[in-house]
Amino acid sequence: MLETRDLLIEIGTEELPPKALRKLSESLTQELGQRLQAAGLAYGSLTGYGAPRRLAVWVQELTVSQPDRVLERRGPALTAAFDEEGRATAAAQGFARSCGVPVDELESLESEKGAWLVYRQRQQGAPTRELLPDILAQSLQALPIPKRMRWNNLPVEFIRPVHWLVLLFGDETIPAELLGVQANRETRGHRFHHPAPLYLAEPAAYGPLLETEGKVLADFFVRREAIYAQVVEAAKQLDGDALVEEALLDEVTGLVEWPVALAGRFEPDFLQLPEEVLIATMQDHQKYFPVRDGQGRLMPYFITVCNIESEQPEAVVEGNERVIRPRLADAAFFYATDRKESLASRCGKLKKITFQEKLGSVFERTERLAQLARSIAISMGGNGDWAERAGLLSKCDLVTEMVTEFPELQGIMGRYYALRDNESGEVAEALREQYLPRFAGDRLPGTPTGQALSLADRLDTLVGLFGIGEPPSGDKDPYGLRRAALGVLRIIIEAELGLDLRLLLERGCQAYGGRLTESNTAAQVHDYLLERLRGYYLEAGFRPDEIEAVLVLKPGQPWDFDRRLKGVASFRELPEAESLSAANKRIRNILRKSEEKIPPQVEPELLQDPAERALATQMYDLEQEVSPLLERQDYQAALRALASLRGAVDRFFDEVMVMVEDPTLRANRLALLDRLQTLFLRVADISRLQN
Amino acid sequence: MLETRDLLIEIGTEELPPKALRKLSESLTQELGQRLQAAGLAYGSLTGYGAPRRLAVWVQELTVSQPDRVLERRGPALTAAFDEEGRATAAAQGFARSCGVPVDELESLESEKGAWLVYRQRQQGAPTRELLPDILAQSLQALPIPKRMRWNNLPVEFIRPVHWLVLLFGDETIPAELLGVQANRETRGHRFHHPAPLYLAEPAAYGPLLETEGKVLADFFVRREAIYAQVVEAAKQLDGDALVEEALLDEVTGLVEWPVALAGRFEPDFLQLPEEVLIATMQDHQKYFPVRDGQGRLMPYFITVCNIESEQPEAVVEGNERVIRPRLADAAFFYATDRKESLASRCGKLKKITFQEKLGSVFERTERLAQLARSIAISMGGNGDWAERAGLLSKCDLVTEMVTEFPELQGIMGRYYALRDNESGEVAEALREQYLPRFAGDRLPGTPTGQALSLADRLDTLVGLFGIGEPPSGDKDPYGLRRAALGVLRIIIEAELGLDLRLLLERGCQAYGGRLTESNTAAQVHDYLLERLRGYYLEAGFRPDEIEAVLVLKPGQPWDFDRRLKGVASFRELPEAESLSAANKRIRNILRKSEEKIPPQVEPELLQDPAERALATQMYDLEQEVSPLLERQDYQAALRALASLRGAVDRFFDEVMVMVEDPTLRANRLALLDRLQTLFLRVADISRLQN
Repeated sequence: MLETRDLLIEIGTEELPPKALRKLSESLTQELGQRLQAAGLAYGSLTGYGAPRRLAVWVQELTVSQPDRVLERRGPALTAAFDEEGRATAAAQGFARSCGVPVDELESLESEKGAWLVYRQRQQGAPTRELLPDILAQSLQALPIPKRMRWNNLPVEFIRPVHWLVLLFGDETIPAELLGVQANRETRGHRFHHPAPLYLAEPAAYGPLLETEGKVLADFFVRREAIYAQVVEAAKQLDGDALVEEALLDEVTGLVEWPVALAGRFEPDFLQLPEEVLIATMQDHQKYFPVRDGQGRLMPYFITVCNIESEQPEAVVEGNERVIRPRLADAAFFYATDRKESLASRCGKLKKITFQEKLGSVFERTERLAQLARSIAISMGGNGDWAERAGLLSKCDLVTEMVTEFPELQGIMGRYYALRDNESGEVAEALREQYLPRFAGDRLPGTPTGQALSLADRLDTLVGLFGIGEPPSGDKDPYGLRRAALGVLRIIIEAELGLDLRLLLERGCQAYGGRLTESNTAAQVHDYLLERLRGYYLEAGFRPDEIEAVLVLKPGQPWDFDRRLKGVASFRELPEAESLSAANKRIRNILRKSEEKIPPQVEPELLQDPAERALATQMYDLEQEVSPLLERQDYQAALRALASLRGAVDRFFDEVMVMVEDPTLRANRLALLDRLQTLFLRVADISRLQN
Repeated sequence: MLETRDLLIEIGTEELPPKALRKLSESLTQELGQRLQAAGLAYGSLTGYGAPRRLAVWVQELTVSQPDRVLERRGPALTAAFDEEGRATAAAQGFARSCGVPVDELESLESEKGAWLVYRQRQQGAPTRELLPDILAQSLQALPIPKRMRWNNLPVEFIRPVHWLVLLFGDETIPAELLGVQANRETRGHRFHHPAPLYLAEPAAYGPLLETEGKVLADFFVRREAIYAQVVEAAKQLDGDALVEEALLDEVTGLVEWPVALAGRFEPDFLQLPEEVLIATMQDHQKYFPVRDGQGRLMPYFITVCNIESEQPEAVVEGNERVIRPRLADAAFFYATDRKESLASRCGKLKKITFQEKLGSVFERTERLAQLARSIAISMGGNGDWAERAGLLSKCDLVTEMVTEFPELQGIMGRYYALRDNESGEVAEALREQYLPRFAGDRLPGTPTGQALSLADRLDTLVGLFGIGEPPSGDKDPYGLRRAALGVLRIIIEAELGLDLRLLLERGCQAYGGRLTESNTAAQVHDYLLERLRGYYLEAGFRPDEIEAVLVLKPGQPWDFDRRLKGVASFRELPEAESLSAANKRIRNILRKSEEKIPPQVEPELLQDPAERALATQMYDLEQEVSPLLERQDYQAALRALASLRGAVDRFFDEVMVMVEDPTLRANRLALLDRLQTLFLRVADISRLQN
């Protein structure tokens, strides 16, 4: 057992970016652990700490040195190393000299392949304390920091200026200079509560000392849980339930060293504002947590988390109340002002807003959306008028006071204002739903009008950008086309819409009139969508060959694709699948290789062999049976029915020779196989399935 | 995978006994874990919390119910259950009736031994929430609480009155009443800082919420580390090193919910007091941590850990300084007073103190100790006069003011006062050393006089109590005789003293004159000491048979025992050991079974067989070789030499018949074996070794 000690590393900085803190802390712990292992330094456990002004790692039971290693250098063969009388030859002496030892310190290495002179050097493992500064420097270099900064004219850079560094290994400071500071064993407490240095008795003391004396809860996850618990507890004191969003919780955790949740209130009158406005004001602008009552209605309270334990919490609360009041008053003013003018009346203002330099104004865009949404709605069996109206109004809220102030309320305010203008309810809803889904896993639009508008919005963007030669490339996707494509597919598939992409894309192109500079835009976007479709299903757990079997048909309807794919996935579980897939491969090869023209019809009277007659008969019956299933898009049932062909197909290949001398017979048999292949291809190319 | 949730259990009490807290908390965690497992309830991890007013356990990922079980009840054999036509017999119908099901719901159980009708009942696992109240009640009942109390006329009892109970399972309170309170999901914070209830968002919130809002660091070990770190840090601020004893650290951890270390000072004049007095005053009386400077000298500072974060820490420090000043002044006064009178002059006062009712006064005891220590010292080659003087003075400090106030300073003050009286340095040192070792693993007296006095003290106690019929029995050992016995053995063995226990015990008995009522006291105590010796070596890792091989010799000298034992342990590693041990067993059996008288000498002319002659010759040579080794007590070398007999002994048993017809020849061979056995027994009875 090698001796071990605990290690503590802390980098004290100026305030770190709160949204990046969690990732930074996790990365440092991970990078450090990997490098310790790579250096052969074993340890018991790693604990990472991350607070607004520090990143730290506590390594428990870290070995004090690398294990010793034996280096082996092979010299001449034993037969060449000693003469008949056992004296070292010149070769042996030369080798010994090159190793810097006398011949008698060399050893022999014997294996099945022979015996050699060998020099074994025991190399002592380096002490951990000497390796650590480099390991730490490399770990810091590997952190995900988009932009490093310099400070104080020092020749170093980091995400923020570094003020102190702790490198405590067991009971000793490791002497090192890193990021412009000298390592020691003093941390610092809370920026206001305990700015003075704190001497660390041992690495294990770090967390507990900072917690009690330093007033810093250094552990990110404990601090996060503390904030969550305090916020919930504070809301309970008001008989309410706190509304705690994960992202805000992470951000606040990145902002405070010592969390203290306090409840404040605002005038109940403001509750007349839409709740999204109140939530946006509290959450996004002030980093406050809203409070709901038992019925889910907002209460005139908020929970703020401050970074200081004040002796006068009332004063802190009052300060926070003073800050939010004008913001809510502003919001109320915007709301009142906006409602004086109808949404529709704002359309003209959209002319002054550019959608994309080459693609014209937002106004032109809304005209295209109106047209496209209308045609989509009609294809879906929806209300074309509503969709057209929603398209026209879709971007009007962008020029309201409220959305100018709270961009995250786009669509949401559109809905409120449309309702106020007595637009139809579904039109209003569509204004909000056009932005759904916002991210992977987000909910989808629920109304047909919302679905049509959301599809139109995404298709218009895709077609527009591809049409001026700006498709996404590599990591670059400034217009979020990838997300747009996935949104299109998800809406069509999950809402089970029988829409054809090619048609929609053609219409999308037409709507642009002469603006598009690229030819073939619809086909390009279609390929791009099919590529996304593959990714979508791979992620859902389907196998690449199953997807390929459907994709080769270049299907236009995503929902139809979905049903075919599920049919194939279910088919491959059948006992007949393997044999039929192999038979289809064979058929494809035969047909590809035959250079003659295949007649369009099978001539029944030319079928001589009982096996081919049996296959043909069963095939005709199945064509009848399968047709209605295909019409219903019940591809699973269709493939199950086709599976019954296995016996006849196997028998055919066992008993019948296709490429016979007689050209008439041969052509007829090729026609039979072609017809069989076509029958399967009406669902998918099952010859693509791998075993 | 069964669904899991976190569980939090907290029992809120009045202040728990601080020295018992750690044990209580660990026991609750352990008992609960065992009972959950016994009930078939799996969990991820257990975290125990223990603070002055609470015991808690956080169980992560506890399954929400027991797994389902199948109960199997066996009925009549199949042959008896159905008649020849396959109809159920009366036996089968009766069995089915007793299970409450029709015959056709019974199944059959077939094994190699036969086939039976069987009733299988799937029993659903009970929900965890229903099992928990009982599991908790049993766990609480199992806690190591010497005395339970009752309160408020409630029909329940616990170590302290219980004020609240948390039983939170996932997001739900488990409805239960335990220890007189109703379970809910509200904990309480710090007694002064946050006495109000705190709503728990979820079990994981417990620690973080109490830490930040409740101002209670509930985790015993984190709190302990925080105290340690704060105390060290506070001492560093004074350029000193804190003196932190584990026991005090545990106790302070049991006293505070939220530790805040503060440094205080006292008048540097008090540093003239012996440092043990200062440390006892700070540590034992005030629960303060003393501070040393770089040279290890005490500084005029102390670190106190308070349970409250004061807004005026200076006032708290001043209060503490005000408390310790009079205590130090008292100590200084005692010290000055005590030094006015010599130690020796206090002997008379010891006549009024009873050592033990039947064993007379402490004064009589010191006279015995003087006599016994003198004779021990002389046996050791030490100074008898010093030992006698030390014995006479040994208990005089018990009647000084200082030791009356600080009993833990007995011996220590004796030394200071003896030095002041110009007693010899080793006499003074012996006064302190007589109490060593105080506990298992404690250091031993270093001076011969100290060793003699410590041995005398322990032997006098052992002999006295055994002599009046009060040996320790079972768990009862009010005079600490077990510890005294171990002390005697450790001093003799570890200081390598060539003392004979039997002799010492005889002298110890004589010193009591006619006071002892039991006969045979010395032998009883000797047996008791040998028993302890066995335990001592078992703990040190020796094997029972090795110890037995030496113990059967009833050795008088423990140090000699030690050398023999190590010789045997080393002998058993030799390749000859097994065969020689077996031969010795055989010899012992032969000699035991022969009923004739064995002649005292081997007659060389009667040795006929070459094998017996060879054995005899080698044996005579070895007797010569081994004698000086035994004199030097080099038993390891002696056994190594005797191991060379293996060949001759094996050959003897292979070629020579011992129990021949000829009585002369037979007697002579028995005499040879007897002499061989004796030769080995001069070291140990190696026939006892097991393979």
